[in-house]
Amino acid sequence: MDSKINKSALDCIMTRTSVRSYSDKEISRETVETILRAAMAAPSAMNKQPWHFFVIRGEQLRDTIADTLEYGRQSLRNAKMAVVVAGDRSRFFEDVEAVDYWLEDCSAAAENLLLAAHALGLGAVWCGVYPIPGRIAQLRKATGLSGEFVPMCIIPLGYPAGVEEPKDKWDPDKVTYLD
Amino acid sequence: MDSKINKSALDCIMTRTSVRSYSDKEISRETVETILRAAMAAPSAMNKQPWHFFVIRGEQLRDTIADTLEYGRQSLRNAKMAVVVAGDRSRFFEDVEAVDYWLEDCSAAAENLLLAAHALGLGAVWCGVYPIPGRIAQLRKATGLSGEFVPMCIIPLGYPAGVEEPKDKWDPDKVTYLD
Repeated sequence: MDSKINKSALDCIMTRTSVRSYSDKEISRETVETILRAAMAAPSAMNKQPWHFFVIRGEQLRDTIADTLEYGRQSLRNAKMAVVVAGDRSRFFEDVEAVDYWLEDCSAAAENLLLAAHALGLGAVWCGVYPIPGRIAQLRKATGLSGEFVPMCIIPLGYPAGVEEPKDKWDPDKVTYLD
Repeated sequence: MDSKINKSALDCIMTRTSVRSYSDKEISRETVETILRAAMAAPSAMNKQPWHFFVIRGEQLRDTIADTLEYGRQSLRNAKMAVVVAGDRSRFFEDVEAVDYWLEDCSAAAENLLLAAHALGLGAVWCGVYPIPGRIAQLRKATGLSGEFVPMCIIPLGYPAGVEEPKDKWDPDKVTYLD
């Protein structure tokens, strides 16, 4: 096998799964910065980096969000923190045909964030917000997020309370070879 | 440092960068399957897995795509293969308010694919297709992709011809702490 192969990174990708129950262990500032650095290492169309990360550490605000949002409540309540991955409108494409690239870029950043969390021993779950108008409004209301930002998802984070088995989603029928 | 920390996965995330020039080294079938497995390990809203992967190995088809598509031509021409990450409409949400989740799910899958490629020593670049109508039409024309699938991006792949330095995109101004 090629010595350049990073089996450990492949293992991280293959074993990441949604974690919704967390222990009481605190998350250090250093760990938070590491996962945000990973998120910002994502690719983006024309390198616009149209993302912004709102880090929610206070229990009270987390509870307010859990009370307001129709989804992810249980995870938010027992998480140690949460990150809202949002699009930054000032960095969107002006061309209306290209504007949705922000959603792809922020999704790549969110996936990097989840993988980095898993690599650091944390558990996390991507709770979808955008494009559901009700959820966007609920999250705006709970956090006071300005119109400049579009909340894409909220990711509760914490050290896993248990052991989660990853799903096997491999499906060769989802591959077509064109030659 | 916690022994559970997977530094190697973090390193993969932080050092991945767009690679547009490739060597002549062939990519094995096993390697292709590994990167597709990684792509399918991505999370998706309600576990819909609304993705499909079109693997383009033939030089002639790659050249046809490069001739037709307005973007990514040079990379496509010298790549050993390319993967089109597409949305599978049969797996989209029926609720029109939720339909755009496919784009987030396919983007997470594309990011996994790029990271797995990098972990395996390959280079790759995310060439945006969706939402640009012209590019979608061009790629459909070149590949004969049916209307059931929405091409999101095309990713040329190959072993890097040179050494690419990753960009440092860390920007603390893109983080807001809400407590």
